[in-house]
Amino acid sequence: MPVNLPSPTLDSIIPIPGVRLGTTYAGIRKKEKDDVCVILLDEGCTTAGVFTQNACAAAPVKLCQKHLSATTPTAPIKALLINAGCANAATGEPGFDDALNCCSELAQKINAAPSQVLPFSTGVILERLPMAKMHNGINAAFVSAHALPILAVNASEASQQAHQQAWFKAGNAIMTTDTIAKIVSAQQGEFCATGIAKGAGMIHPNMATMLGFIACNAHITSSVLQTLARNVADDTFNAITIDGDTSTNDSFMIIATGKTGELIDSEHHPRYTQLRSLIFSVADKLAQAIVRDGEGATKFVTINVEGATTRQEAMQVAEKIALSPLVKTAFFASDPNLGRILVAIGNAGIQGLDFSQVDLFINDLKVAEHGGRASSYGVPEEMRALAIMRQDEFSLTVMLNRGQAKARKMTCDYSYDYIKINAEYRT
Amino acid sequence: MPVNLPSPTLDSIIPIPGVRLGTTYAGIRKKEKDDVCVILLDEGCTTAGVFTQNACAAAPVKLCQKHLSATTPTAPIKALLINAGCANAATGEPGFDDALNCCSELAQKINAAPSQVLPFSTGVILERLPMAKMHNGINAAFVSAHALPILAVNASEASQQAHQQAWFKAGNAIMTTDTIAKIVSAQQGEFCATGIAKGAGMIHPNMATMLGFIACNAHITSSVLQTLARNVADDTFNAITIDGDTSTNDSFMIIATGKTGELIDSEHHPRYTQLRSLIFSVADKLAQAIVRDGEGATKFVTINVEGATTRQEAMQVAEKIALSPLVKTAFFASDPNLGRILVAIGNAGIQGLDFSQVDLFINDLKVAEHGGRASSYGVPEEMRALAIMRQDEFSLTVMLNRGQAKARKMTCDYSYDYIKINAEYRT
Repeated sequence: MPVNLPSPTLDSIIPIPGVRLGTTYAGIRKKEKDDVCVILLDEGCTTAGVFTQNACAAAPVKLCQKHLSATTPTAPIKALLINAGCANAATGEPGFDDALNCCSELAQKINAAPSQVLPFSTGVILERLPMAKMHNGINAAFVSAHALPILAVNASEASQQAHQQAWFKAGNAIMTTDTIAKIVSAQQGEFCATGIAKGAGMIHPNMATMLGFIACNAHITSSVLQTLARNVADDTFNAITIDGDTSTNDSFMIIATGKTGELIDSEHHPRYTQLRSLIFSVADKLAQAIVRDGEGATKFVTINVEGATTRQEAMQVAEKIALSPLVKTAFFASDPNLGRILVAIGNAGIQGLDFSQVDLFINDLKVAEHGGRASSYGVPEEMRALAIMRQDEFSLTVMLNRGQAKARKMTCDYSYDYIKINAEYRT
Repeated sequence: MPVNLPSPTLDSIIPIPGVRLGTTYAGIRKKEKDDVCVILLDEGCTTAGVFTQNACAAAPVKLCQKHLSATTPTAPIKALLINAGCANAATGEPGFDDALNCCSELAQKINAAPSQVLPFSTGVILERLPMAKMHNGINAAFVSAHALPILAVNASEASQQAHQQAWFKAGNAIMTTDTIAKIVSAQQGEFCATGIAKGAGMIHPNMATMLGFIACNAHITSSVLQTLARNVADDTFNAITIDGDTSTNDSFMIIATGKTGELIDSEHHPRYTQLRSLIFSVADKLAQAIVRDGEGATKFVTINVEGATTRQEAMQVAEKIALSPLVKTAFFASDPNLGRILVAIGNAGIQGLDFSQVDLFINDLKVAEHGGRASSYGVPEEMRALAIMRQDEFSLTVMLNRGQAKARKMTCDYSYDYIKINAEYRT
């Protein structure tokens, strides 16, 4: 059961002029459910991406990085191609060629070079892409995207609905074992953005990929968009952790369609902050949705670390807590186990940490101070901590009291279902 | 059920002349079972220790480090004091004073300074030591140790048996939720060594401490013994990992009683290697026993990483595999899931790793080469891999093929019982 994650509604989707999405079922996954998605980008779009750091990065990730670095104002990215069911990872040179061939095929249909197409894959790893199926899938998804009306300023309601429908289908097509599609829209002033994502970790073991795509109507240079993508990813998709296993295919893309007048050509541009705030709000909801839909997850927990010397240090402590199996099983048990949390903090490898300065809160309840049990934390307070942790959503806040930097991680618990899903799928 | 771990037998214990052990039940733990142990060191002993790196190190650990650094040839360590049931961790200054008072109390009985006593604690954290009980416990355990005969060269069988019995009781007294006492003896030439240890991680959540004590009859300087302790710990106690949580109280001590003639005063001394080999064999068996007795563990898995640029790099890869929850649940499922293992390798953060050079073996069966599925790994081989992983003991070997360094980690799987033990103990 997802933790506080309602299904997306068609009405809530804001179509983004400048992109057209199409999907189809190509038979790559066994279940008869759309598995190929094409996103066509109109003229004037800029794109930016952030990818997995895993040394075993999949062929499509390597190709995306290559193609993105080759874009020029006259040869921008024109299309994205996404498939579920096969990750095309650990497939060596032949896998790389497969990904390139898929790009070429879509490129031909839109009179572009193969390097103007970005490929994304998610699904089982160590298996080659079924190219005949991909061929049919690319064709049908392209036809579906191409058939969408181009959204004018005062588009008809029917056109709007067709685009909402297309986003909805795309959000569903990229799912693997996600139980709920992740589709989020937001609007701030003249900016609007819509994004889709699929889940990572704690899901079917061979499909643990995080994919996120956000399109917005801003007019922004590629290089500033890249800064924005990196910056937003750090605070959202990189701030979630389920079991610490970074996948081979993790990718997060932002498309800016350039439909709103003034060009944002610097981080110091007056409207950069507004745009960043909008993209952050969409990315944050998508990232949270991935954790909330973690299979086996029964709790959504936010770990805040404050008073650190550097953001990196705060992140290190937050991550150690978020990934400690002893802490995660205590979350599952609704157990305010100070010892496990303090041990995880001590275990984060922070140079020169004075543990006698460490305070800890569960929501706003102080449970530890000076590195030990808080003097105000008696039996009634322990009952309150227990009640807080019985909720399906709560936070831990660690105060290191040695600097000004802070960080946040969002995570979930380890339940019986985590073991079940990850150990028993074979039987 | 421990994995291939027989109970120790009295007969197998080699008494070590120069140390006398005594135990008692002081009521610190609820279960009526010895919980205090005193080890008296005769004249001529040297000692060395390795301790937790956790910033939340417990009071006894801090005091041990202080006392060890204060030893001189005229004021050596004269006794060790160990208690189970309370870890005296995250107890601040008062906890430090408690530990010091315990040392003082034992020191008085043996005409030594408090700094000549080393304290060790394991059990619940965030709770103060029950000092009245400790007082009685120290007294009774001292009396019991002191009553043991000093072992002469040709000691009577009764004296020998009394010492064997004392080691046996000590091995049991330091247990917390270990199901089997860990006691190992070995002999090589004129050197003999006996050690006891208790388990870490994956055991009762508030008692996840690793303690190890080895006594040998060698004559060796403190500084060379310290080098030996660090070196052996790296390859044994530091080469096991259960869930990655380093405890507040982890300690590993070596006592050398100086009973065998020639002084080893350098790592280049001709007999250093022989002694190192003996101590290694005892420490390795004790460290393995901790993993084999991990509660919930159903498999004992050795991860070898070879062909690394540095030992640190090899260790990093081995640890990432050993701690990946997805890999550990695959162990539990007897699933030769190449994808999860390759992803963990890629995820180890090795700079400039050429993944196309990575090979992987399950026991001696090649399953992956050039970063992908091995060409020789067909359906019959997959059946063989499955059969190997159904055994309760097997190894993974990763060849990075980029250097000469290697490392080994020993670990276990994540089973339903892991979640059960760590999440449900409250109910």
